[in-house]
Amino acid sequence: MKIMENLYIVLVRPKFSENIGFCARACANFGAKNLVVVNPENFDYQIAKKTATNIGKNILENIEIISDIGEITNKVNFVIGTTARLGEQRKVNYSLVEFVPDIVGLLEENKVAILFGNERTGLTNEELLSCDETITIPTYNNTSLNLSHALAIVLYEIHKNIEKPRLEKEIKLASPKEKELIFNMLIEVIKEVNYIPHNNETLWMRNIKEFINNLNLTSRNSKIFLGLLRSTIKKLRRN
Amino acid sequence: MKIMENLYIVLVRPKFSENIGFCARACANFGAKNLVVVNPENFDYQIAKKTATNIGKNILENIEIISDIGEITNKVNFVIGTTARLGEQRKVNYSLVEFVPDIVGLLEENKVAILFGNERTGLTNEELLSCDETITIPTYNNTSLNLSHALAIVLYEIHKNIEKPRLEKEIKLASPKEKELIFNMLIEVIKEVNYIPHNNETLWMRNIKEFINNLNLTSRNSKIFLGLLRSTIKKLRRN
Repeated sequence: MKIMENLYIVLVRPKFSENIGFCARACANFGAKNLVVVNPENFDYQIAKKTATNIGKNILENIEIISDIGEITNKVNFVIGTTARLGEQRKVNYSLVEFVPDIVGLLEENKVAILFGNERTGLTNEELLSCDETITIPTYNNTSLNLSHALAIVLYEIHKNIEKPRLEKEIKLASPKEKELIFNMLIEVIKEVNYIPHNNETLWMRNIKEFINNLNLTSRNSKIFLGLLRSTIKKLRRN
Repeated sequence: MKIMENLYIVLVRPKFSENIGFCARACANFGAKNLVVVNPENFDYQIAKKTATNIGKNILENIEIISDIGEITNKVNFVIGTTARLGEQRKVNYSLVEFVPDIVGLLEENKVAILFGNERTGLTNEELLSCDETITIPTYNNTSLNLSHALAIVLYEIHKNIEKPRLEKEIKLASPKEKELIFNMLIEVIKEVNYIPHNNETLWMRNIKEFINNLNLTSRNSKIFLGLLRSTIKKLRRN
């Protein structure tokens, strides 16, 4: 995923080393390569290593620690700030989902930094004002997200928009022929056991047809069903 | 957000109390009300309280701790398993983003449980088989997500989809009770007609259970099915 080499995840003054580790793992989970930390408080590599797990080990080993935010913002073409607050002086232009296609578009040709603020206070107004855009992740009652959760969600959306992943579905649905066979056999069972609960037989038959269609039978399931119906009919007739 | 009262977030055998706290906060962040924990290892409320923060305090105080997964899966209408593994025996039918509109649709009329496995091993194959559907969050190189990150992403998607207006019809699914009745009656029919195609009866019974789950029976359809099964059994016995 070459596009991800243009992305810089920037944690501004993070308080807890555990969170730095969690963020390193989240970066690895979604193919982000560059984790930058600005003025961490008491950064402890050994603590971060635990929460990064083996998955985030490589990201953590290559972490870039800087003391001034300008060292990264001056190096990239576009800076995005994240914030939980939707109030007053703070301008929020986009929700994550609105802006993520633009982020992916930008990443194709530009270096992009996404800034995440400190756990307690977030980004300052001054920092937000220096960003080219600010985004927010809508939450219930505007409660603030855990730092690494916010990062994981942002990266999840970017990854989703880059990959547009499609899991192949190996589910083979029942063929019209199989469904017709089931219908015919079910009707035979119904007749053998006199299970027609009202007088309008045509309507009832339509109900049964609809019933079979609604089951969304797979081909495999229809074979189980057919086998059982066959045996049932045989037994009903034998008696 | 009344719809969220139908959602049960279930952590199965979580190892770390920190993670339970993180999950409580994520629930609060996206309006989920019910957090259930099955057999936690050394659950320490004081540790969980710290990572839950004030935001997740209420969820944590109302956490339901149970010792058997059946206590929750028998109480809901639809069970969704989450898994990182895409391999071999493990069936994964949907990526999160594909299935989330269905989850929201189901929640309008049904109680839905979403299961998250233990940090190291995830859900067992047996647990996954007992689910009505399984979903996965696509990641880079299929690396596994931190437990609370996976939960936050799932809840973020649900929350996002609830906010959208929807027009689809609301479907009332068969209850666990109805499905169990169907299972029992189907077994009776199978025994009456000696339809057990191979020697491993336990495996065969599991097949039948899976078969019923895969049908995604609506409540209305299950009533038609039950009526037919009842008549069939009566007739088979009479002879």
